Amino acid sequence: MQKTTKDLKPIFKPEVTALRAYSLEPHEASIKINQNENPWETPEKIKSETLSQFESHRWSRYPPFISSDLEERLAAFAGWKPDGVLAGNGSNELIQALLMVTIAAGKSVLLSEPTFMLYRQVATILGGDVLTVRMTPDFQYDVGAILEAIELNRPQVVILCSPNNPTGTRIADDDLRRILSASSGLVVVDEAYHEFSKQTVVPLLEEFDNLIVLRTFSKAMALATLRVGYLLGAPESVMEIRKALLPYNLNLFSQTAAKVALDSYDSELRPLVNKILAERDRVFDEIDALKGFSPIPTTANFMIVRSELEPKVVFDHLLSRDILIRDVSRYPMLERFFRVSVGTPAENDRLLNGLKELVS
Amino acid sequence: MQKTTKDLKPIFKPEVTALRAYSLEPHEASIKINQNENPWETPEKIKSETLSQFESHRWSRYPPFISSDLEERLAAFAGWKPDGVLAGNGSNELIQALLMVTIAAGKSVLLSEPTFMLYRQVATILGGDVLTVRMTPDFQYDVGAILEAIELNRPQVVILCSPNNPTGTRIADDDLRRILSASSGLVVVDEAYHEFSKQTVVPLLEEFDNLIVLRTFSKAMALATLRVGYLLGAPESVMEIRKALLPYNLNLFSQTAAKVALDSYDSELRPLVNKILAERDRVFDEIDALKGFSPIPTTANFMIVRSELEPKVVFDHLLSRDILIRDVSRYPMLERFFRVSVGTPAENDRLLNGLKELVS
Repeated sequence: MQKTTKDLKPIFKPEVTALRAYSLEPHEASIKINQNENPWETPEKIKSETLSQFESHRWSRYPPFISSDLEERLAAFAGWKPDGVLAGNGSNELIQALLMVTIAAGKSVLLSEPTFMLYRQVATILGGDVLTVRMTPDFQYDVGAILEAIELNRPQVVILCSPNNPTGTRIADDDLRRILSASSGLVVVDEAYHEFSKQTVVPLLEEFDNLIVLRTFSKAMALATLRVGYLLGAPESVMEIRKALLPYNLNLFSQTAAKVALDSYDSELRPLVNKILAERDRVFDEIDALKGFSPIPTTANFMIVRSELEPKVVFDHLLSRDILIRDVSRYPMLERFFRVSVGTPAENDRLLNGLKELVS
Repeated sequence: MQKTTKDLKPIFKPEVTALRAYSLEPHEASIKINQNENPWETPEKIKSETLSQFESHRWSRYPPFISSDLEERLAAFAGWKPDGVLAGNGSNELIQALLMVTIAAGKSVLLSEPTFMLYRQVATILGGDVLTVRMTPDFQYDVGAILEAIELNRPQVVILCSPNNPTGTRIADDDLRRILSASSGLVVVDEAYHEFSKQTVVPLLEEFDNLIVLRTFSKAMALATLRVGYLLGAPESVMEIRKALLPYNLNLFSQTAAKVALDSYDSELRPLVNKILAERDRVFDEIDALKGFSPIPTTANFMIVRSELEPKVVFDHLLSRDILIRDVSRYPMLERFFRVSVGTPAENDRLLNGLKELVS
């Protein structure tokens, strides 16, 4: 057979071929506190109810064209209008759709760093300019610098993760109001961890047309494996963003599980959130008491820890104890940090013991 | 509360605001032959095995970063290399990722029309130019015109749906070879319906680096509600396209079902395909015998029918009989056509009776 070899590289955009793939080190361990998941398994009631509801669906048929039933339930849960809600295959899909309808060459996205890496990845693929402002040395949002960057560059989109991954920082409502007022573009607040901060910017949606809120079922809602996220915003924006969502973007099994989880939040999931928060405070205090480790105050279910030891040394030692944490030392400002998610009490004890071994 | 009203329209790309949302008429009927789904429910063995395997998974945890286990199984099933496979949340997600890494303002996509509407939608949002070549009057690929358009415009991507939705036409291997040779860009062959044509262009992947094949679990594989698709191509292309796929793009329930379906294809699904093909030939012949209706020969599980009556009249009459077909009269060249999917024998009898009522 004759093989026709072509030069494929020129087919792809230069900003893509230059990009390193977003990836995760392929480590495994019994104690997995590297992805800020809910450490408790999805409550049995949610699993069995989902399986039983789904069994009778017709699997060979497409799901509803728009997940309007789920979107109405999400609206009621979040306290917002049904026509201002989009459900997605994880909140990642929604930030991608939002950037697809706003960003191209010559348009810019403003990020406050360090933050979740994916925003930069998607904006870059779309040919946009990624502008960044550093957080303050104590990992608060540098609102003055953000406002200055907005005035100077008029970014199409500003993305703030709040509580921020990986720092755990939340932006104050009044600071967010100033950013929303100053911006002629969209201001996206990624509230992936809002259940742990017990605060939300959703009430500001009534005040500001240009606010977009993102949320996920992958953290407190304990459904990471099913990939469900949602977006809240002005109906006018939602209408445009929906054009970049693929038809049938969210499979019906995940839709079913999400509805069951919403119904069970108060009885099944909120108690887990409260257990995680109690453990977070214990883990924080115990790490803080160790010489050479300084955790940074957090409003989420994880924390970054400043370490006198090289983060890689801490990572490797814990991995040798079958504990997987996140080495965040390649993030801006975080050369000396690692990140731990809050696990179950037994998992946290193992983490604390592992860290104590390093300082003794 | 003070409301700050902003002019949101300039935030969105003009090509997006100008775009009509991809949508489907919100009609419902007991006999649903408008979306080319498998009319038989997913075999019980596939459903029960999937549910039982999935129950024991940890739902609160992210799925594997890359679906490598599924991708290896897909490679074996399709007869291609594992590092040349991408699994996605429906094949739609894969065409979107492919266009994201290749198309921007100034780049073009070439389509042969009439065809599946989504290609144009995504390419337009990304700012690309959509070039089109019409099929021949008898709905064959106009290969001469395609080659001419390639030479003239050097499109980044050529997309051919084969068997084509909605015409049912397949491109001949030798014609495809000429297109692959002439093109310096990617040539995507969407094989959503290949199980019905019992032919595939996968062997050409060995000959041509620039060929990409798309497939889906939403048709013959009877899993439309779970959204699984896959892409086959040169590993070098797959590596670039993967950069635009979101992490954890495919939920673990759908991955589980897809693997079970692959294992059960020969015993459970192929017999359904054969039943559908026998029914397709019967439906074709019976419609062909009706005065005023001329079906177009098809290699898929659906057909377009030229109608002396207005397609809208046929659509409305059948809907009044609780039968939902697709009115394709807004597609180029199809002003006088409607499309029907092949249903179960009982469903097809109802369709044929409904059409007979119109001609009597």
